[in-house]
Amino acid sequence: MTEHVEGRLLIIGGAEDKKNECKILKRFVQEAGGKESRITVLTAATELPLQVGNEYHSLFLELGAREVQVLDVSDRIQANRRGIGKEFENSTGVFFTGGDQLRITGLLGGTILGSTLQQLYERGVIIAGTSAGASVMSDTMIVGGEAGTAKKDSLTMAPGLGLLRSVVIDQHFAQRGRIGRLLSAISHNPYVLGVGIDEDTAILVQDDARFTVVGSNTVTVADASSSTTTNVSETSPGQSLVLSPILLHVLSDGYGFDLKRRESLL
Amino acid sequence: MTEHVEGRLLIIGGAEDKKNECKILKRFVQEAGGKESRITVLTAATELPLQVGNEYHSLFLELGAREVQVLDVSDRIQANRRGIGKEFENSTGVFFTGGDQLRITGLLGGTILGSTLQQLYERGVIIAGTSAGASVMSDTMIVGGEAGTAKKDSLTMAPGLGLLRSVVIDQHFAQRGRIGRLLSAISHNPYVLGVGIDEDTAILVQDDARFTVVGSNTVTVADASSSTTTNVSETSPGQSLVLSPILLHVLSDGYGFDLKRRESLL
Repeated sequence: MTEHVEGRLLIIGGAEDKKNECKILKRFVQEAGGKESRITVLTAATELPLQVGNEYHSLFLELGAREVQVLDVSDRIQANRRGIGKEFENSTGVFFTGGDQLRITGLLGGTILGSTLQQLYERGVIIAGTSAGASVMSDTMIVGGEAGTAKKDSLTMAPGLGLLRSVVIDQHFAQRGRIGRLLSAISHNPYVLGVGIDEDTAILVQDDARFTVVGSNTVTVADASSSTTTNVSETSPGQSLVLSPILLHVLSDGYGFDLKRRESLL
Repeated sequence: MTEHVEGRLLIIGGAEDKKNECKILKRFVQEAGGKESRITVLTAATELPLQVGNEYHSLFLELGAREVQVLDVSDRIQANRRGIGKEFENSTGVFFTGGDQLRITGLLGGTILGSTLQQLYERGVIIAGTSAGASVMSDTMIVGGEAGTAKKDSLTMAPGLGLLRSVVIDQHFAQRGRIGRLLSAISHNPYVLGVGIDEDTAILVQDDARFTVVGSNTVTVADASSSTTTNVSETSPGQSLVLSPILLHVLSDGYGFDLKRRESLL
């Protein structure tokens, strides 16, 4: 049995507003402790760590954070170097930038930095991620796949950071027409909930059990657990998928969802 | 009470294969009577009636039709001219090309051609349409609207030909990321079923009650009739939609759906 975890996650669908109201990033700073916050930006995902790191560094300070450090880890040796746990463990908020999700898991998985992250999460420190940084939050993550029609095996998946259980995340969701690949992902194991997060939109997950939507667009939850008609075990790769029925929930700012009971909160 | 109608419709999501197997167009010719078929192509939707008309004319003959006529109606006077009913009423299959759905309804609505079409449908003559020709089949049709996030009033609708009741059709569905606008459409009145048809995919509707999927991609049925959470009557135009739960059915070639019972057929 797993212990109860107090974890908090802010999972952002990419392209969050950085110029106007900055609603999502402001919420992150607030959840991290506002004027008392010490934020660590992890740029592992991006190949432009300096540029991206600097941008978030300035933004979080403008939005009222007390301290912001950018931790650029570009190989596993750095993620295991002595002292990295110390630099990291006082954070009250952690932020993963966008880029390539496999860089995050490939660099952090099984390292000191990775296990310190897990400890921070279990202590209730808010862990945020945008775009690729959103995808990595779950047990199994979507790494790639085409937009368009739901096809069998039209996407690639890999083990994620495992902070959020029994869920698979997709980002830039409506903007890139990704419902087909999300449905394809959950068809492999309908126990898993699909959560598609639009750009400039986030879910704030609390207690591993419920989330609230923050931002300007929508979050789509797809639940195929009661599906009775499917061709997933029969068709060949690349064939069009059959999956029916699926329960879909489209939610916007302020609306909530219970991930355990699989229903929207009024 | 409306009478029982024997009508058959072949509603195609656009970009149907015209070069290889031609599965959908072949099915149309077969449903129209095969070697005994007399097909009328209606090019009202397109601004290139000659080119588009000629293409389908050749195709249907190649696929085994007995006679093919292209009826180009470019204004309402032509759609009402003496004799047009005669030219049309012997058809065993009618095919609407793609283009602009408002051209079809604007030119045919309330004309002799329009009422002859209705009679043919009621007699069981198969009526097919692709792309814009697909959208016009229902009572209310989607005329336009952006892809992406489901927003309130992000689409325009108009009265369609009304051959298929209580359904709203969208075409080029997965290819153009149109699930948001289909959900927006059905949120206005969840009594209406949303049917999104991918490119090179069609539904063959029989007896106004059930359909079978034909083609290479998928058909998505969205049913919001049991939704309990929505913001459609509260939000301002352009705001992100809330709709939960929605029942979704993703079906591919050979699978069927009962439009009255709102469930997939095994």
